[in-house]
Amino acid sequence: MQRVYIKDLKDYIGKEVTIAGWVDVRRDHGKLIFIDLRDMSGKVQMVALPNHEEAHKIANNVRNEWVVEIKGQVNERPERMKKEGLNGELEVEILETRVLSEAKELPFEKDTELNLDTYLDYLPLTLRTEEKKAVFKVQTVIVQAFRDFLIQENFTEFQAPKIIGADAEGGAGVFELEYFENKAFLATSPQFYKQIMVGVFEKVFSVGNVFRAEKHNTTRHINEYTSLDFEMGFIEDHHDMMETENKMLKFTVERLKEKCQAEFNLLNAEIPKVPEKIPFMKLKEAQEIIKKEFGEDCVGEPDLEPQHERWLCEYAKKEFNSDFIFVTHYPVEKRPMYTYEDEEDPGFTKSFDLLFRGVEITTGGQRIHNYDKLVSAIKKKGLDPEKFSFYLQAFKYGIPPHGGIGMGLERLTAKFLGIKNIKEATLFPREINRIDTLLNK
Amino acid sequence: MQRVYIKDLKDYIGKEVTIAGWVDVRRDHGKLIFIDLRDMSGKVQMVALPNHEEAHKIANNVRNEWVVEIKGQVNERPERMKKEGLNGELEVEILETRVLSEAKELPFEKDTELNLDTYLDYLPLTLRTEEKKAVFKVQTVIVQAFRDFLIQENFTEFQAPKIIGADAEGGAGVFELEYFENKAFLATSPQFYKQIMVGVFEKVFSVGNVFRAEKHNTTRHINEYTSLDFEMGFIEDHHDMMETENKMLKFTVERLKEKCQAEFNLLNAEIPKVPEKIPFMKLKEAQEIIKKEFGEDCVGEPDLEPQHERWLCEYAKKEFNSDFIFVTHYPVEKRPMYTYEDEEDPGFTKSFDLLFRGVEITTGGQRIHNYDKLVSAIKKKGLDPEKFSFYLQAFKYGIPPHGGIGMGLERLTAKFLGIKNIKEATLFPREINRIDTLLNK
Repeated sequence: MQRVYIKDLKDYIGKEVTIAGWVDVRRDHGKLIFIDLRDMSGKVQMVALPNHEEAHKIANNVRNEWVVEIKGQVNERPERMKKEGLNGELEVEILETRVLSEAKELPFEKDTELNLDTYLDYLPLTLRTEEKKAVFKVQTVIVQAFRDFLIQENFTEFQAPKIIGADAEGGAGVFELEYFENKAFLATSPQFYKQIMVGVFEKVFSVGNVFRAEKHNTTRHINEYTSLDFEMGFIEDHHDMMETENKMLKFTVERLKEKCQAEFNLLNAEIPKVPEKIPFMKLKEAQEIIKKEFGEDCVGEPDLEPQHERWLCEYAKKEFNSDFIFVTHYPVEKRPMYTYEDEEDPGFTKSFDLLFRGVEITTGGQRIHNYDKLVSAIKKKGLDPEKFSFYLQAFKYGIPPHGGIGMGLERLTAKFLGIKNIKEATLFPREINRIDTLLNK
Repeated sequence: MQRVYIKDLKDYIGKEVTIAGWVDVRRDHGKLIFIDLRDMSGKVQMVALPNHEEAHKIANNVRNEWVVEIKGQVNERPERMKKEGLNGELEVEILETRVLSEAKELPFEKDTELNLDTYLDYLPLTLRTEEKKAVFKVQTVIVQAFRDFLIQENFTEFQAPKIIGADAEGGAGVFELEYFENKAFLATSPQFYKQIMVGVFEKVFSVGNVFRAEKHNTTRHINEYTSLDFEMGFIEDHHDMMETENKMLKFTVERLKEKCQAEFNLLNAEIPKVPEKIPFMKLKEAQEIIKKEFGEDCVGEPDLEPQHERWLCEYAKKEFNSDFIFVTHYPVEKRPMYTYEDEEDPGFTKSFDLLFRGVEITTGGQRIHNYDKLVSAIKKKGLDPEKFSFYLQAFKYGIPPHGGIGMGLERLTAKFLGIKNIKEATLFPREINRIDTLLNK
């Protein structure tokens, strides 16, 4: 008999069905044994009655997380026994049970409040809760919305390499690799490749893992994450990317409403509202506002502190009723060498951060497209253009004005869902002292 | 004025438009200067006439790969001047030119036949040809079809980590990494994680880079590639995965017909035909056929040689009119420790390879789901179950019968398009002596 998914059982009341899944909870009332069965689609309560002798015997044996296939009768519950939620109006009477897979004794009781380390030690088990499944369902929908929007806007997807030949920017946070008889490095972003690809397809995007050898072990850092990147050519200035990102976020939020309202409800989180036009201001203006509204004088500082970002979001919410705000025109010295300097505001760049509910979720901007300017910007940062020769070809052989953004999927998921620690929005988080299991020092 | 894409110019005959792109070719006939302009959508011939003095002067200056924005008049060509193909019926008369970006002198003439090393040395330039764009457009459509099919079949996408803690299988082909004060490794496949995720979402897939430290420098090897993987629970046996893959390939080919017929034509390649049911046979049977039909006795050998794979494909084409054939039941000793042994054919596994036009493009199979059996299979391979403790939790805590497949995107692209060297179906191929540029030994 064709397997029925648990979410569809309401269509089978009064009928016999085959369902399959994990024993989520088992309650032994002697003659009656109740089993909650869980599959990819939901849960249902089943009951084993003593008159189905064989089925009752097996029900007596099974334990949590055993995997079983059940032939059962879908019965409507009496009115007074009906409950809210999925399958609250029905119960499956077990007729036959086939054990597909046994489980050993679990290391802790279901629904135990776990500390983070225990949660991470037992991920193959602890990821199986409704809450964790909801988090990663939302993550999946975000990444799919990102791609679907950009495909619809004629962006071409490409696969960026992760092994890179030189740590050209000389950053501290780069992992080093034995590459046969040479050294190589792990990419911290697909930046150079997406700019090169603008020369090929004009508008491109990529989704892939990037790596940061940061020693911090905080709630905001992980050493490997999924980077969502797009880059587009033939732009006027940084507002083109801000507009594209604005639309992409609107599209994503619509998709979340359509596919993930239940998951947001389960996690007590609110799907963000994206305004038609996300407000934006220059860093300088933002600092003036902070001074005026919150009394702290950070005017002239090259960047925003975390507290400043929180204040600005508070201000944007109050003033523009927006969870989002763009801050533009960070100073040249705080941005990478490829960042475009605003001719009308020398010393400051056509770059931006997008702040959301108190935190930066995206960095983007216009890039330098003129070869000679880029070479001199590289030199100004004290770097050696020779080391960038491969990348520089994109500019040497003609590239249009362009720019793009990058954002971390796990951070975005965490912020959308109000999850405090990014490790809980990352399936298998890598940290300084853990790769799946704890590392020995 | 809103920019018009070059492929849409036929809708603007008799009108003024703004177009933008790269100078693909420039031909100077003195008074008349012809420029072929290339954008993401196609090419068009433009002409600068001496009566538009300023535009003519700029047209005189521009060189190949300069990026320009053109205001022009779309004129229909006289009948006798019309050509086949995109925009063969029209020409753009240049009215105004804005240079967006200059290019330095190119290292070689357009359309020069390049050797592979020169092609790779200059990728930011050499990827810009119609042929290379066609290859990577097809690649993009393949990966999108893979995902779209699986999403439609209720598979959940997940992000697999690339940094792994232990080279548990002890293979030679693994890259080693400095991970703070420890060693780590780069994943050669998402295998363990996708099996773990079957415990969470039942049916999962992932697309991501994997890494092989293989020293061969051949037309079939690269050291980093994109792996397309799915894994599904609650199966009967390996035929479930073969059937899912069969459907996925049919879906992909339909998508290619819809989106990439022009690219296949340009590359003189034929979109493969996928039969309703791809033929399959056991390794033993395949070897008997090779003996009988091609006269070589390889019966009893543990694997197929490249020549055997070519012969089998020849046979499948002749006998079943199929470009594809599944070979199942490779012996236990030739497959990884997690491969399911067929109870009815001891010593042989419920695994398969998919052969296509002479080459293996996928490996898949059913996996061991019983914890004790898996532990003993690990020991039989001479490995230490202790090192697999994280992965083993998925089985210790109950997992359904399951299996999956993995395939390399670049190899698939190459085989579909009849490209001999996989490096030409990889955007930025990593090889033993090259990461973008040649490495020093």
